[in-house]
Amino acid sequence: MDTTVETESVRLYYWPHIQGRGEFVRLVLEEAGVPYLDVARLPKAAGGGVARLVELRRGEGKGLLPYAPPFVKVGGLLVAQTAAICDFLGRRYGLVADDEAARAGALQLQMTIADVVAEAHDTHHPVSTSAYYEDQKDAAIEAAKAFVAHRLPQWLGYFEKVVERGGGDWLLGAQMSYVDLGLFQLVAGLRYAFPSAMEQQSAPRVFALADRVAEREQIAAYLRSERRIPFNEDGIFRAYPDLDVTG
Amino acid sequence: MDTTVETESVRLYYWPHIQGRGEFVRLVLEEAGVPYLDVARLPKAAGGGVARLVELRRGEGKGLLPYAPPFVKVGGLLVAQTAAICDFLGRRYGLVADDEAARAGALQLQMTIADVVAEAHDTHHPVSTSAYYEDQKDAAIEAAKAFVAHRLPQWLGYFEKVVERGGGDWLLGAQMSYVDLGLFQLVAGLRYAFPSAMEQQSAPRVFALADRVAEREQIAAYLRSERRIPFNEDGIFRAYPDLDVTG
Repeated sequence: MDTTVETESVRLYYWPHIQGRGEFVRLVLEEAGVPYLDVARLPKAAGGGVARLVELRRGEGKGLLPYAPPFVKVGGLLVAQTAAICDFLGRRYGLVADDEAARAGALQLQMTIADVVAEAHDTHHPVSTSAYYEDQKDAAIEAAKAFVAHRLPQWLGYFEKVVERGGGDWLLGAQMSYVDLGLFQLVAGLRYAFPSAMEQQSAPRVFALADRVAEREQIAAYLRSERRIPFNEDGIFRAYPDLDVTG
Repeated sequence: MDTTVETESVRLYYWPHIQGRGEFVRLVLEEAGVPYLDVARLPKAAGGGVARLVELRRGEGKGLLPYAPPFVKVGGLLVAQTAAICDFLGRRYGLVADDEAARAGALQLQMTIADVVAEAHDTHHPVSTSAYYEDQKDAAIEAAKAFVAHRLPQWLGYFEKVVERGGGDWLLGAQMSYVDLGLFQLVAGLRYAFPSAMEQQSAPRVFALADRVAEREQIAAYLRSERRIPFNEDGIFRAYPDLDVTG
């Protein structure tokens, strides 16, 4: 059974019960139509399970030691860090134009999305990622207020301007790239975590772009499938009503 | 006078009074021996000043809108996001080997360094980047305790293992790359912000690597020069004695 894993060329290693940062990678692979193994979600008997991920993290693989999931293994090369993975896969599978400006542009935007993701995460864990939400709830409510009042409109406004300046349907203009998938995921996550606050935001171009991504054939099929894990309160985006503050 | 700026090929845009994230870029340019203009630090009369940076941020330039400094302009291309800039410059000026594994590896490590930098920053601003340190000092002390007790040894231990596994003097093994400069800067910043806590850390390979970087001809000259802005309490790494907690 291990041969199933060994013969496939693309393997994703990520926590099996959450979308998390791994979802940005899943979306790239789904849009590219690349067959991949979501290793930690496979049964042990098929060579899967969380243990495979933990082994790599512990340094039982070859090559550069990854710090934290997600990581992807393609043709013997293990790549970690979400935006670096998206850059790597995007170039490999044609989800970014093959020129320096598009590559640097997509990578830079994906890293900016990662910054928003980290900030959104930190609203429920502002003091320590090792402590419980309940033990830092007061600080979390303050952090959520600051995020919703200042940062959320700033970030959305930024991406809105990028789409506007690009003059096309996508962040980089006329050509769709992996970073559009990332923006879709960011919007979906923010809507899950901050439904009321997001209702009050104005970013028509960003929201229309997110809709366009959701309607793409491969993505629509993926979102309907069981491969798409529902959002939940173990992930980055958490629906804690106390944090969905509105002004 | 504007011609000085216009004829140079590499321009760095970053806040003029702090090392901040811009320092990771300055170190790459210094090591590469590439002449560059640190635009915001130049006099207005020579086409410099913070206004030039703000203009680009406001969208008065061409191409992709950057979110936040640092950004770099090379041959008409504007690139933002520290790790994306380091990747771009590293490839352009030979500070990373020209193969997929080295490139993906260096980028991934630089992004991990960026994660530590963000966490170190958030110790003094855990609740909101828009509020004063004094107004979130209690949460900051808790955040610093958690950072020093859990995250600092984890991060240093991770980089220590990477150097060990690489089997050479540098993070990627035998060949120095831009990410070694980044690790040097991270260690320098952590030592400035958390002097006592850093004294208690054991990461001999990481600290030896940082020393090797500091002794490189171009870097040593840079560190002695006035181009190296001293650490201060407006930057990412701040020497707040209340946050230099030890176990």
